[in-house]
Amino acid sequence: MVKADILINKLIFLRMAKATDSKEKTLTAAIQLFRRQGFHGTALRDILAAGGAPRGSLYFHFPGGKEQIGEATLRLAGDAARARIALAAEVASSAELFLRRIAGAMAAELESSGFNDGCPIATTALETSAQSKTLAAAACEALQGWEREIAHGLKRFGIADAEGMATTVLSQLEGALLLARTYHDPKPLQRAEQVLALLLRAHAST
Amino acid sequence: MVKADILINKLIFLRMAKATDSKEKTLTAAIQLFRRQGFHGTALRDILAAGGAPRGSLYFHFPGGKEQIGEATLRLAGDAARARIALAAEVASSAELFLRRIAGAMAAELESSGFNDGCPIATTALETSAQSKTLAAAACEALQGWEREIAHGLKRFGIADAEGMATTVLSQLEGALLLARTYHDPKPLQRAEQVLALLLRAHAST
Repeated sequence: MVKADILINKLIFLRMAKATDSKEKTLTAAIQLFRRQGFHGTALRDILAAGGAPRGSLYFHFPGGKEQIGEATLRLAGDAARARIALAAEVASSAELFLRRIAGAMAAELESSGFNDGCPIATTALETSAQSKTLAAAACEALQGWEREIAHGLKRFGIADAEGMATTVLSQLEGALLLARTYHDPKPLQRAEQVLALLLRAHAST
Repeated sequence: MVKADILINKLIFLRMAKATDSKEKTLTAAIQLFRRQGFHGTALRDILAAGGAPRGSLYFHFPGGKEQIGEATLRLAGDAARARIALAAEVASSAELFLRRIAGAMAAELESSGFNDGCPIATTALETSAQSKTLAAAACEALQGWEREIAHGLKRFGIADAEGMATTVLSQLEGALLLARTYHDPKPLQRAEQVLALLLRAHAST
């Protein structure tokens, strides 16, 4: 009986580990596809093909279908980028270097992917804002989470009106990322990096 | 014979007028649908239903199918917004008022549409950048056309490095529009308006 229990526990654990693994694979593949070709441009079979997870596991983990996968990707991608913003604030020695680090990371990711990997939230957000309350809410939460994390980072360096400045920073970066991706040219992001430094100085003197 | 010629000309003219009308209807409907729910989220039947043009006219005007419609909408929406930017520069009495007018118009359009009518280029641009060279090129041309028109307007008011400033302005406005639409809140655009004024002053003193 005890032996059987151990065996059952082992099997459950193995099944859970496998399940979690296939769930993660599915979400990672979906994030990549949604940011590159959009939510509507991605079929469930594309996610299965890219993620390598069995079809059954997809229905098991996401009984709500594609909308539920979309919501999960927005949350996961939102949290991951937020953690990176928090880390950037921690390792930077000034507000200017903090913002330069974020802009630099965005430009590096975009360029190294052949101008494919833009914002993991923007495409789905724009496509679904008027169609799905669930996805619209998740996209809103992700972007507002980044804004709060930027504000939090700016406060560490004593920037006044950090909330207002964070809105400006995120607007500038998101817009520059859209232009850089569309132009296949990192210049708009490099320009954003310079402008944000200029803005911090102008902001400090007002 | 002369009478027959006149009649034929009349018929051709009538057919052309009708054709042009249905082409315009189709494009206007497509612009609206693509900006609200994306290129991939819009089926040809949605465009037909919204535009009211007969199916035959759609195939007649756009033998290249949805991609050709997408390209035409990007060009039309790009040109229309560029003309509005040019007009804003003409009627404004300062660079600050010029930029405030553009930001104000974007906020007004977004709010009056219940936060549905965002940028007519961004959604399709992000969805198709990695998939269709034709659509990517048209989206790039539209956004770069706006940038050039903003630079042209800034030059009228003697702004130095008008090209660089135009990149910043368009990045800020596009990003703020994405946030405003996703948040269902005009504040990011209002904030962008203030920041662009601040930037013009900071820019002038550097």
